[in-house]
Amino acid sequence: MDALVIHAPNDLRIEQVPTPEMRPHQLQVRVRCGGICGSDLHYYQHGGFGTVRIQEPMVLGHEVAGVIEAVGADVPGFQPGERVAISPSRPCGVCRYCQQGLQNHCLDMRYYGSAMRTPHVQGAFRQRIVIEPAQAYRLADNVSDAEGAMAEPLSVALHAVRRAGPLLGQHVLVTGCGPIGALLVVAARRAGATRIVATDVNNAPLRSAAKVGADETVNVAENPKALERFAAHKGSFDVLFEASGNELALRGAFDALRPRGVIVQVGLGGEMTLPINTIVAKEFDLRGAFRFHQEFETAVALLNSGLVDLKPLISATLPYRDAARAFALAADRSQAMKVVLNFD
Amino acid sequence: MDALVIHAPNDLRIEQVPTPEMRPHQLQVRVRCGGICGSDLHYYQHGGFGTVRIQEPMVLGHEVAGVIEAVGADVPGFQPGERVAISPSRPCGVCRYCQQGLQNHCLDMRYYGSAMRTPHVQGAFRQRIVIEPAQAYRLADNVSDAEGAMAEPLSVALHAVRRAGPLLGQHVLVTGCGPIGALLVVAARRAGATRIVATDVNNAPLRSAAKVGADETVNVAENPKALERFAAHKGSFDVLFEASGNELALRGAFDALRPRGVIVQVGLGGEMTLPINTIVAKEFDLRGAFRFHQEFETAVALLNSGLVDLKPLISATLPYRDAARAFALAADRSQAMKVVLNFD
Amino acid sequence: MDALVIHAPNDLRIEQVPTPEMRPHQLQVRVRCGGICGSDLHYYQHGGFGTVRIQEPMVLGHEVAGVIEAVGADVPGFQPGERVAISPSRPCGVCRYCQQGLQNHCLDMRYYGSAMRTPHVQGAFRQRIVIEPAQAYRLADNVSDAEGAMAEPLSVALHAVRRAGPLLGQHVLVTGCGPIGALLVVAARRAGATRIVATDVNNAPLRSAAKVGADETVNVAENPKALERFAAHKGSFDVLFEASGNELALRGAFDALRPRGVIVQVGLGGEMTLPINTIVAKEFDLRGAFRFHQEFETAVALLNSGLVDLKPLISATLPYRDAARAFALAADRSQAMKVVLNFD
Amino acid sequence: MDALVIHAPNDLRIEQVPTPEMRPHQLQVRVRCGGICGSDLHYYQHGGFGTVRIQEPMVLGHEVAGVIEAVGADVPGFQPGERVAISPSRPCGVCRYCQQGLQNHCLDMRYYGSAMRTPHVQGAFRQRIVIEPAQAYRLADNVSDAEGAMAEPLSVALHAVRRAGPLLGQHVLVTGCGPIGALLVVAARRAGATRIVATDVNNAPLRSAAKVGADETVNVAENPKALERFAAHKGSFDVLFEASGNELALRGAFDALRPRGVIVQVGLGGEMTLPINTIVAKEFDLRGAFRFHQEFETAVALLNSGLVDLKPLISATLPYRDAARAFALAADRSQAMKVVLNFD
Repeated sequence: MDALVIHAPNDLRIEQVPTPEMRPHQLQVRVRCGGICGSDLHYYQHGGFGTVRIQEPMVLGHEVAGVIEAVGADVPGFQPGERVAISPSRPCGVCRYCQQGLQNHCLDMRYYGSAMRTPHVQGAFRQRIVIEPAQAYRLADNVSDAEGAMAEPLSVALHAVRRAGPLLGQHVLVTGCGPIGALLVVAARRAGATRIVATDVNNAPLRSAAKVGADETVNVAENPKALERFAAHKGSFDVLFEASGNELALRGAFDALRPRGVIVQVGLGGEMTLPINTIVAKEFDLRGAFRFHQEFETAVALLNSGLVDLKPLISATLPYRDAARAFALAADRSQAMKVVLNFD
Repeated sequence: MDALVIHAPNDLRIEQVPTPEMRPHQLQVRVRCGGICGSDLHYYQHGGFGTVRIQEPMVLGHEVAGVIEAVGADVPGFQPGERVAISPSRPCGVCRYCQQGLQNHCLDMRYYGSAMRTPHVQGAFRQRIVIEPAQAYRLADNVSDAEGAMAEPLSVALHAVRRAGPLLGQHVLVTGCGPIGALLVVAARRAGATRIVATDVNNAPLRSAAKVGADETVNVAENPKALERFAAHKGSFDVLFEASGNELALRGAFDALRPRGVIVQVGLGGEMTLPINTIVAKEFDLRGAFRFHQEFETAVALLNSGLVDLKPLISATLPYRDAARAFALAADRSQAMKVVLNFD
Repeated sequence: MDALVIHAPNDLRIEQVPTPEMRPHQLQVRVRCGGICGSDLHYYQHGGFGTVRIQEPMVLGHEVAGVIEAVGADVPGFQPGERVAISPSRPCGVCRYCQQGLQNHCLDMRYYGSAMRTPHVQGAFRQRIVIEPAQAYRLADNVSDAEGAMAEPLSVALHAVRRAGPLLGQHVLVTGCGPIGALLVVAARRAGATRIVATDVNNAPLRSAAKVGADETVNVAENPKALERFAAHKGSFDVLFEASGNELALRGAFDALRPRGVIVQVGLGGEMTLPINTIVAKEFDLRGAFRFHQEFETAVALLNSGLVDLKPLISATLPYRDAARAFALAADRSQAMKVVLNFD
Repeated sequence: MDALVIHAPNDLRIEQVPTPEMRPHQLQVRVRCGGICGSDLHYYQHGGFGTVRIQEPMVLGHEVAGVIEAVGADVPGFQPGERVAISPSRPCGVCRYCQQGLQNHCLDMRYYGSAMRTPHVQGAFRQRIVIEPAQAYRLADNVSDAEGAMAEPLSVALHAVRRAGPLLGQHVLVTGCGPIGALLVVAARRAGATRIVATDVNNAPLRSAAKVGADETVNVAENPKALERFAAHKGSFDVLFEASGNELALRGAFDALRPRGVIVQVGLGGEMTLPINTIVAKEFDLRGAFRFHQEFETAVALLNSGLVDLKPLISATLPYRDAARAFALAADRSQAMKVVLNFD
């Protein structure tokens, strides 16, 4: 079968990889759709990010959905032909963090398509994949394969929202409206935020944020002082989701955030220089949010029940044979939000 | 002007009461709509509840909306003609609980239409009322007066939901589907619950709960064992909102509630006999929820933005001169959810 | 070797049981001391409690400490001769609750000396026991074997304290001063409570509570209205630890507990009839606390560092051959707090 | 009467200021002891810190204790001759943050001896002061005036500990062992931390930290890699209190802090450059802690009951007429922890 293998920056190849063997406690899935994530883009464009670098060829991809082809003899409750979203989170289950319910901090995580460890964990941009039943979440008929592939980034947003604590009635600022930022708008709204303002430095992502429910959008490149009107009374936002990874976005929101405001940092961004005295004096609560675990089930439940609608965020679906074009499109923020590869 | 004054059980009179004088820091409001609450019904039918009894004539009512008639000289930001929902919560602001942000536990609360203290606090079922600006929340054009009157019971539900902690992705059981139970369905959904099951002993309230979003409704009178299928693996609900005030409803949900499950008790119900060993062994967390304070602002924000739709819960709007008929209708659970009085 | 086996109420026998075989990943421990717990007493006096009844002979005991005799070939980090406290908590590690860090709610828990499941889980009142390394916690030289056996009930108290949330600066009421109640005084003080009042219906346990740090003790049998002076301003205690399992103790504390007060129910007590309206109107938070898991490590750390002193709570240490006398003493609240069996 | 007035850097004068007039709801206190705080030192050495600068002469001081000289006619419960610690926290009580119980974020705070607003708020390094009863906390006979003056910095530490959440059984790292760092050791121990490691770049403060209970002290200037051994398994500290205001201290602790670790930033330090990806990937929770409010009551309760002993932290007590010498000593970290002025 075919897989998309990254060898070096801008060297992404369609290669034949052997079909894995399914064991009795496993499922075999025909992958149908896979969303291109920011980390896939970083591997493709730069060979990695921060200290994480490709050391060997690696199949990309961790946002996939497909249809069950075969069910192991020891697996109850699944049938061939059922469509599933696949969680790429495979914690060990036994380390101290797994036993504390913090699976996203597992000491032996094998997350699809990640060069964080070597040998790298091979990814899911392939035509066929063998998974554990715990990774498979059935999709309802009303959810397309492409939407199913969105369960993974939605999980990231849901996890970030859970890190923020209760949002019912809260005023929320989202900085950075790429796919994760837009999904944060969706998730924050679903969790009860009554006011959501989204910022970006480009208008296209802001239009997407508005489509999925942002009450107000602000282009902070065009209007750098736009957040000043939220600064009265020491600030009016209860929660900031920082999804740009940009120091200016984070610093620029401090005056608009009320004392005891919660900042959930989702965007990765290397070193940032921050006014620590403001964090102290306003008693901000700056929390990192990284991946997810149990939120995948919630993501699929929200999709299946129609409680979220992610269709406006799917910019295009292209055949995996056009991967180069798809990755180029995914990299163009003025054109694309989420780009999905079709593996059929 | 006219007011609805309760003198004794079943002795509710329309009486002339003097128009109050507005001071410079106050607003005068022409009351338009007032919802009949369960406590109003208790005063009407039984003269009170528990140890709270009418000791003197008292104007009923605390769920009202109206239009501003006059604005005190020292009040900025309001205009005559603006429509507002009126919060009946008037804490003292200076006691230890107010200074801790727990205004609903104020040591000197003056809540409209309440016989909890003597002299009683006169209520808002009257044609004209003088209020503090902090009680007034502007209604958007898309929100009717009757919906505006629903801001108060919605606040009760929102407060109960906040007591439960984050609901995003949670499985929720609501027992008792009167107006508060139905509003709990609305509020829990708005806060991100992915599965909501509602129970009652009558079908009419269950139909209302379904209309406002319950995923499943169960008549536990007809089908007393209906919750058994939720008992596997020590229970499957994360949160129970108990809105019936009935011991059987509370006890009956214990097997369906998971270990560490949260129970928010909203319904008042006198003495209840409970299996304390189950509470211990499953480490339930049983939390009372009483009235609200800052949630009123959230309630109006949700109504104004269309993030909740309470129209299905308004069974009828009757002129205040037909109060007897309105109260009889409100008392008939097979016919009515919320009954609203029109004071125009 | 010898073990203490309960056959029926008042039928506790010293019996020879085979020495278990140690596997390579296990430790073999010579048991030295075992504390008699309330549940051991219930099995001895009544054959069980609630619906939990002895169906077959069962070795009692779950509060033990001893010395390592043999270390399995695959176990790093332990040496024969080291003294250890032994955690009786053996969760499965793989069920949904274990994976959420809620090991005390494990769907397949094998807790020593418990008839909650059949076949019963055999206990630790035996001369030799084979354990998993994760159950063994090294004791410092300054901690006696008998104190080491107290790590288990201290863990119960620590878990209850953790259920209460932060106690720094809090005013705490403890009702019921048996061993768990007295340990709650110790644990609450260690966690920063600034005022601790303890109640009981007997003076002997109150004297023990005072010895371990209660600021004030109250005999509520002699002085039933003693808590009234704490009722001003809607109550002055922030947290109640209810360790008596007595309905009167729980109800009797409600007026003294402030709004939003936290009640941690530790004592088991069958059915209780409670004024639910008070729980609602004061928004109490009634939380069950059941056993423990990770708190065992904390218990041993506190003992080893001398941050708690439990010696005042050890009433007597008797040879296991005098078990009948030891159990009789343990049942006499006027004479004994914790009674320890010596298995050497 | 005399007061210590700062006019400019290194221009601290003893000046006669008029004795204020006491109103009927107030107390008049003869100040006996006042501790020199880091902010007093900053005003003295540099004229301020960050953007906060002396614009006009200002009486310094906010850590004081004294004896009541006169009690206003409308003040119940106080007697002349009683010794009190004085809280310098004077929030307005009516702004949105006060009404949320966040008095330390009051929009109109008048904190003694602060140039954060102009006109500056005059301080308490004076012989006589008029206060509100809510600022006065009675000292027990066993607490000296100098210890009473420590209630204020202890409150800062207690507030920081409350910001961290429950510490029972937690492993705590404190970076920076000036007076606040040392008090954090005290407060963390009092709140139940089982292991406390303290770091500094000087040995004198580390000796003080050890005296008040740190289990281990590390001079990170002499031994920059000393924290590496805490880095296994993604880190072993649960909580970091950063009291140095030094970027290197904060960054240097990241590897030793476990995933989901809590960082409470207490030290002020201008701009800091931080590896934001680590905060994200380890999901740290970086919380500012600023001043205090209700913790003052707890501080005095802990002192009165002997639950904390701050005497080892009081380096010297000097007459206020030797202020220059006292300030010089306070600035010398190799010699002094807390220096107290005597105003008698």
